[in-house]
Amino acid sequence: MVPTVEWKEGIVRILDQSRLPDKIEFVDCRDYETVAIAIKELWVRGAPAIGITAAMGVALGAQGLKALDYDTFQKGVLEIADHLAATRPTAVNLFWAISRMKRTLAALKDESIADIKRLLVAESQAILDEDIAMNREIGRHGNAVIGQEQTILTHCNAGALATGGYGTALGVVRAAWDAGKKIQVLADETRPVLQGARLTAWELMQDGIPVTVITDSMAGALMQRGKVDVCVVGADRIAANGDVANKIGTYSVAVLAHAHGIPFYVAAPSSTIDLATANGELIPIEQRDPREVTHVRGETAIAPDGVGVDNPAFDITPARLITGIITEKGIFVPSELAARMRNAV
Amino acid sequence: MVPTVEWKEGIVRILDQSRLPDKIEFVDCRDYETVAIAIKELWVRGAPAIGITAAMGVALGAQGLKALDYDTFQKGVLEIADHLAATRPTAVNLFWAISRMKRTLAALKDESIADIKRLLVAESQAILDEDIAMNREIGRHGNAVIGQEQTILTHCNAGALATGGYGTALGVVRAAWDAGKKIQVLADETRPVLQGARLTAWELMQDGIPVTVITDSMAGALMQRGKVDVCVVGADRIAANGDVANKIGTYSVAVLAHAHGIPFYVAAPSSTIDLATANGELIPIEQRDPREVTHVRGETAIAPDGVGVDNPAFDITPARLITGIITEKGIFVPSELAARMRNAV
Repeated sequence: MVPTVEWKEGIVRILDQSRLPDKIEFVDCRDYETVAIAIKELWVRGAPAIGITAAMGVALGAQGLKALDYDTFQKGVLEIADHLAATRPTAVNLFWAISRMKRTLAALKDESIADIKRLLVAESQAILDEDIAMNREIGRHGNAVIGQEQTILTHCNAGALATGGYGTALGVVRAAWDAGKKIQVLADETRPVLQGARLTAWELMQDGIPVTVITDSMAGALMQRGKVDVCVVGADRIAANGDVANKIGTYSVAVLAHAHGIPFYVAAPSSTIDLATANGELIPIEQRDPREVTHVRGETAIAPDGVGVDNPAFDITPARLITGIITEKGIFVPSELAARMRNAV
Repeated sequence: MVPTVEWKEGIVRILDQSRLPDKIEFVDCRDYETVAIAIKELWVRGAPAIGITAAMGVALGAQGLKALDYDTFQKGVLEIADHLAATRPTAVNLFWAISRMKRTLAALKDESIADIKRLLVAESQAILDEDIAMNREIGRHGNAVIGQEQTILTHCNAGALATGGYGTALGVVRAAWDAGKKIQVLADETRPVLQGARLTAWELMQDGIPVTVITDSMAGALMQRGKVDVCVVGADRIAANGDVANKIGTYSVAVLAHAHGIPFYVAAPSSTIDLATANGELIPIEQRDPREVTHVRGETAIAPDGVGVDNPAFDITPARLITGIITEKGIFVPSELAARMRNAV
């Protein structure tokens, strides 16, 4: 797999996912403002990947600061952090990664500016490396809930492309595949931005894992016909009570799975868990440009000019519809999540 | 509204719905083979509209027959009827309309060939006229279940464009609007062929009825937030037990509506009811070209080349999820449908 995001000698190199699967193109971000645009415009997307990218954006911005004293330098870094934090409101990994960079900065108060710059880069790379390691643990835990011969339905892309690598929901798929299980994946195309059809299908095909693309509207009919054994999706934010914000359409999949007695799992690193947010209703939901709905891939019009459009990018799946939350620390029943996470820290 | 299909001096003129909403273009079918292509390629679609078009196709084909005796003429018409019946398997109105044309032909056995040709055209026009009249009755009955100020969610297009005119599900919408109710419509875009975004949005905008397009994946989240008061959809075939075949995704809407306690109505003329089919599992479901899923509007690729695709065009909504079936004869609880229809005949 090509890397989603990486640090290259003073550049944040981002795989431009808006062009997948037709073109594999990279954007070399030479300033933090371009990193912010990359996040806003979905060149990079997926909660963990956004966090990693923002952390690298902070490190990149810090390199460009001319300040020679810590206080001025710190002020500059915090401005950069605020700029990057303002890109997208729902995924909590963004704020988690930026907070971690700020804490690192504070801990380095007594170091030279040159050393701090170097150590901020190292911290952002550590976030990337840890993310991949966590995803492998998520995969290891999640593999336990996948049968020997199953069809796994997923929504959006919670794969290598949404993370530092390996993936969360698709990390579970990869772990099951690597364990020799005869699995196949049903990928909801995931309108409006089509992360399922474009990204999940592409990255699974790269690994030779059988995948079938369906429109979002087909999931229910396939469950009705007994064609889905288990659902595994990612998360953009998990509230303390176990409610999950994830790509629009996830809630419908969860209701349908529940109605058919199909287990529904959420796979996410613990950086996605926001214990400060009591429940899903308190999670801000990003409204995006109506043009994402009215024009497919930014070009092909599919609706009359001037029609009204609603375009919430995420929805909330209540804890009661979730069989388990698969993290790097194990699988938790949503209602136990807060207590287990507090104990685990 | 422009007519969906009409007879024009030996031509079946069809509004090419595959080009809507960008272009209003008509195809003049001068032979029945072109009428069959128009049905297969979805230039005309919607169960009632398909029935009307096929009837006109039979009449058009009959005009071209050189036979001078009834038996040869009848054989020719039956071949034409078979050709048109082979276009699409799910919507029963197609077979209903063709059967009616065959019965008309049989009843005209003693007339001159010239008279039969003329009377077959008249019969197909009667099917069109009756369809519009039935839709107005469906609207009149359906209006009773719509509140003074409601948001109506619909899936696909069961409007003027899917019928001779006025529409079934959108006939209910029009009747409520004409009654002065403050309604608005949420139109599921209805992937893969986007009949909601392209057709429902367009025809409601033509009439000045407020409409908002959403992706199919958003319906659940909007129900969860209390933004949907009632669902009204059309039908391609209704089995004797009240199970309904309709555009893929209808079943998901019905499950979601049920989970949220939102009434779910099906609006259809009685020609859609197939008492010979005991239940939904016996209704054949058309599988269409994977390219409808992988390419939007036939041009824009949205998935990797060679990916597996499933593309069932319809699904089955079981009777237990349906609040009522709105026909020109009144509103029926699905379980009562067969008895009430047999009595009504």
